[in-house]
Amino acid sequence: MTVRFGLLGAGRIGRVHAKAISADAKARLVAVADALPEAAAAVAGQYGCDIRTIEEIEGAADVDAVVICTPTTTHADLIERFARAGKAIFCEKPVDLSLARVRDCLRVVEATGARLMVGFNRRFDPHFRAVRAAIDEGRIGAVEMVTITSRDPGPPPLAYIARSGGIFRDMTIHDFDMARFLLGEEVETVQASASVLVDKAIGAAGDFDSVSVILRTASGRQCLISNSRRATYGYDQRIEVHGSLGVASAENQRPVSIEIASASGYNRPPLHDFFMTRYTEAYAAEIATFIAGITEGAAISPSGEDGMQALALADAALISATEGRTVRVAEVLSQ
Amino acid sequence: MTVRFGLLGAGRIGRVHAKAISADAKARLVAVADALPEAAAAVAGQYGCDIRTIEEIEGAADVDAVVICTPTTTHADLIERFARAGKAIFCEKPVDLSLARVRDCLRVVEATGARLMVGFNRRFDPHFRAVRAAIDEGRIGAVEMVTITSRDPGPPPLAYIARSGGIFRDMTIHDFDMARFLLGEEVETVQASASVLVDKAIGAAGDFDSVSVILRTASGRQCLISNSRRATYGYDQRIEVHGSLGVASAENQRPVSIEIASASGYNRPPLHDFFMTRYTEAYAAEIATFIAGITEGAAISPSGEDGMQALALADAALISATEGRTVRVAEVLSQ
Amino acid sequence: MTVRFGLLGAGRIGRVHAKAISADAKARLVAVADALPEAAAAVAGQYGCDIRTIEEIEGAADVDAVVICTPTTTHADLIERFARAGKAIFCEKPVDLSLARVRDCLRVVEATGARLMVGFNRRFDPHFRAVRAAIDEGRIGAVEMVTITSRDPGPPPLAYIARSGGIFRDMTIHDFDMARFLLGEEVETVQASASVLVDKAIGAAGDFDSVSVILRTASGRQCLISNSRRATYGYDQRIEVHGSLGVASAENQRPVSIEIASASGYNRPPLHDFFMTRYTEAYAAEIATFIAGITEGAAISPSGEDGMQALALADAALISATEGRTVRVAEVLSQ
Amino acid sequence: MTVRFGLLGAGRIGRVHAKAISADAKARLVAVADALPEAAAAVAGQYGCDIRTIEEIEGAADVDAVVICTPTTTHADLIERFARAGKAIFCEKPVDLSLARVRDCLRVVEATGARLMVGFNRRFDPHFRAVRAAIDEGRIGAVEMVTITSRDPGPPPLAYIARSGGIFRDMTIHDFDMARFLLGEEVETVQASASVLVDKAIGAAGDFDSVSVILRTASGRQCLISNSRRATYGYDQRIEVHGSLGVASAENQRPVSIEIASASGYNRPPLHDFFMTRYTEAYAAEIATFIAGITEGAAISPSGEDGMQALALADAALISATEGRTVRVAEVLSQ
Repeated sequence: MTVRFGLLGAGRIGRVHAKAISADAKARLVAVADALPEAAAAVAGQYGCDIRTIEEIEGAADVDAVVICTPTTTHADLIERFARAGKAIFCEKPVDLSLARVRDCLRVVEATGARLMVGFNRRFDPHFRAVRAAIDEGRIGAVEMVTITSRDPGPPPLAYIARSGGIFRDMTIHDFDMARFLLGEEVETVQASASVLVDKAIGAAGDFDSVSVILRTASGRQCLISNSRRATYGYDQRIEVHGSLGVASAENQRPVSIEIASASGYNRPPLHDFFMTRYTEAYAAEIATFIAGITEGAAISPSGEDGMQALALADAALISATEGRTVRVAEVLSQ
Repeated sequence: MTVRFGLLGAGRIGRVHAKAISADAKARLVAVADALPEAAAAVAGQYGCDIRTIEEIEGAADVDAVVICTPTTTHADLIERFARAGKAIFCEKPVDLSLARVRDCLRVVEATGARLMVGFNRRFDPHFRAVRAAIDEGRIGAVEMVTITSRDPGPPPLAYIARSGGIFRDMTIHDFDMARFLLGEEVETVQASASVLVDKAIGAAGDFDSVSVILRTASGRQCLISNSRRATYGYDQRIEVHGSLGVASAENQRPVSIEIASASGYNRPPLHDFFMTRYTEAYAAEIATFIAGITEGAAISPSGEDGMQALALADAALISATEGRTVRVAEVLSQ
Repeated sequence: MTVRFGLLGAGRIGRVHAKAISADAKARLVAVADALPEAAAAVAGQYGCDIRTIEEIEGAADVDAVVICTPTTTHADLIERFARAGKAIFCEKPVDLSLARVRDCLRVVEATGARLMVGFNRRFDPHFRAVRAAIDEGRIGAVEMVTITSRDPGPPPLAYIARSGGIFRDMTIHDFDMARFLLGEEVETVQASASVLVDKAIGAAGDFDSVSVILRTASGRQCLISNSRRATYGYDQRIEVHGSLGVASAENQRPVSIEIASASGYNRPPLHDFFMTRYTEAYAAEIATFIAGITEGAAISPSGEDGMQALALADAALISATEGRTVRVAEVLSQ
Repeated sequence: MTVRFGLLGAGRIGRVHAKAISADAKARLVAVADALPEAAAAVAGQYGCDIRTIEEIEGAADVDAVVICTPTTTHADLIERFARAGKAIFCEKPVDLSLARVRDCLRVVEATGARLMVGFNRRFDPHFRAVRAAIDEGRIGAVEMVTITSRDPGPPPLAYIARSGGIFRDMTIHDFDMARFLLGEEVETVQASASVLVDKAIGAAGDFDSVSVILRTASGRQCLISNSRRATYGYDQRIEVHGSLGVASAENQRPVSIEIASASGYNRPPLHDFFMTRYTEAYAAEIATFIAGITEGAAISPSGEDGMQALALADAALISATEGRTVRVAEVLSQ
């Protein structure tokens, strides 16, 4: 079986997925839609697919699955429409910035029986997967404490920040998902601290740029998350998982890993410049997993529920940071 | 000038200091006191000093300074006595487990004008000092976020735990001091989470064995601390300090740093077995600093005030972990 | 301009090049030839090109360049034929196992004005390139001493060894080329030692499996090469270049770079399993360089001359190892 | 039993040994001799021993063992004198620069039954010992190939070079001994290349500053040695031993092992500045081994024979480098 794809949104991340689909022997890119004609044309030209409207893709008999890379505000609506159209759906995170809207959207997905995968790309990084595999194989025993370090090279434009939902929902959400991927137990309470240390304009926009979070599960497992919108040395992405028998860790990846020693010491070049180069393999593996899930009828993960849980942690963290208290996730989910 | 020392307490850490004093050309070990005659005799035999009672050392004209390595409950009393006796005082941490008692003790120290240094040995580790020097030299810009990882190879005996004051006052206190050493600003709020994951008997004794802490200063600087009473791979002691221009970090030290690669991969031996081997250089540098402070009349640090501040952070962390709220340090200090 | 390619030989390395050509926007795979019809059909099916005979490709007006991945014994003949046919030629190493035959072949190339690139893939590895760039930028000063470590995970089949020309011409030749790439000066003398330590059958076949080489240039620069047909821990590929101001080194690359620490120490997984996974990026960059050379009319390197010089070093090494003397390269080249 | 020591020569290395002797509970420094009265006085003052002449120490009933740290030209004579005087002897390398003189000296040692240890300090480095232990425990299988990298931060004064016997006998000799320590089999042939790349004045003095060596044993085991009198990044001391089952390696040691990452990449400070700081632990362990050998009546290693074998390799390397041929060690030893 070949999975026939429609691509919704031909921006930067859309093109990453178009490439992955085209390179996969079990998939074919059939059509692309984008509000900007030249963006759609670029993808169509490079990968030899049709340019169609979203409506045309929705009704197309030759499209089995869609990849949603449009702006965040359209995600939930598009998921509902394509769920009803009987397509398999891959949607970039987040489903929506409002937990209530996500909940409604997932009800439609459930009612239609649609298959939905949410784009938490880091779960597909080969190094992080190897850490998870080490846990699953029992090499570190029972998981006790997780540390996730995630620092962006620099802050996004203020216009982006304004519509991002804030650092917890935009950036830390990846770490919340990674924490759930590694902890092996749902988070019960959240403690967070948030500051503006990088750029005062971010604070003026009502957001933070530097945050620390402690997650705690019912059995007492803990996860520490450290985030900053600044890392002069490149895109800093590390995890370490301590268990009863040992620790498994994934260090930073480097585009060029030479070392030069001289009178001033030993020097290695900076890390990757950002997620597009750091997570190249992860993006390809993510789409391959989605395709395999469709062709083999296997469960698809991370699911819409995973998207909702990560968002709930983000909401809880924001409350903790602003109200100065430990927040139970159940409080957020029950609203 | 040669500083003439009296050693109070000839246990494990007392012997470490006896060795450091004897090896220092500017110091001489004159007398040792210990409730156990054979412990005192062992030190006296090895380093050629007198065995005396605490009272005799208190009144001795040939003793300029004392090193207090007796049980914690005696520290505050001994500090007061030797402050009144006009001796320079080096006291192992903590001054006392009660913040109120520490405050009273420090009033006596201040009133007598005595010189008091508290034994936070990690400040003297050459690697951690180099991190601090990098900060002072401006190499990482303004400090923003600090991460401290501190994991013991295994828990102490339950009897020790019972009188330890709990993990925050006994173990995390070293990290609280390190946080203050590195943050460059006093901590304003504390958030902590604490669990029993290593040994249920520790929980039954009313203590925790796994804790996570977020410290936050007035300007928004943050410090993450991760502690566990278990680390199968050895004594895990790491710090990293993120600033506006970069990050300075000190990785773990190893007694033997070979690597063996075979069909099962690359293998390096475990870390140091505990603080006595990991901080050998730090203990020597600590006493050398105390001696230099006396002979040169320089300020001695860490001071009694440093000891009190670290204890206040421990008290705040305990409240945060048990009451589920963010705790202001001022609340603890004002009690 | 789009470079239209004919692929001669559709085996393992041929398919690597087919993939690289197909992925390059400036190139197109037009035809494939292989003695095995199913090998040719597999490439034709996957990349949508014609299946043709070598003769048909030789005379084809729609083919600008060929990639020669046929058995070694055919290389020189094919280079001559396609040089005369006016095609640009990329040929896998070696041009031939006989220095005299290589010399004759290169005369034809020169006479026809054909463009010839020889497949020393390691020059295109991003890490090794970065070492070379560091040299070119003057970061380590004048090159003095180079160390190249190259160890295969395991020996090839004996049948392969029998027709390989021996370890110096088959395996070390990559290191000889790398030495020339890094030394910045031609080699004048060669000293080599060769043993059979891995498999006696290799010795019975007249070859060696473990060799050490010292290369020396006229000005006294030195290069140490260490080779083995055995490395239980994966494909070991390292270089370090010492210069007057410092050293630049490229460490091993790993497919998965996690670390697991436990009571038995710190463990990292083995290295890549062999060159196909280790040099994925290098193979792609190599063909891209060839394509760019054609479209931009730039010089193409490594050239046939580079192929001949590396072979001369291999011949000299074999003489040194078997005759127990230091061999001048001029002696070999003048035969 | 307490071993009573006489120290011959109170220069830099003599003071290192004086400190080690004084710190060892099973030894006592009784007397020191030095041609410079103030050098002897400094040691006597610091460690509380007598100042005596060499003759007085030779005849002293209260001296069991001597440590010879006088100039190289006096070593063989002093060894013979103290062997005849019935003292145990620790002598800094080399016994002599002439193989014939060494041979004669060792005959006297043998005839008197004296115990002689030669100061190849690197055998006592804890990291190199751990590599050797890994070999002895069978963790890497049969040893096949050894690589030793040894680079000095900078060249010694020309006056020193003039009387050093040349780089092979002065510097590489440590690597020759390490090769013998690790190869597990005597060396049969030597190939060497030598250049002047660091300082032309060294060449004018008849010496080299950059050398490469291949050693080969009867069974074909190989050892590569790389030496330079220049390493801008500090004292470079590495070994790696490849065996049939894997590789054991010891990387460089660092006085301060922090890392600072910034926009210019990741930076670690330089290595140790030279052998006095790099091999601190080795020097202490070396003397402790000598003392234990005496008190326990155990075999003492490295022996005079080890000193002679390493010198033979140096002589062979010099012949190889200057005559351009592979040299058999038997040829040198039989002269």
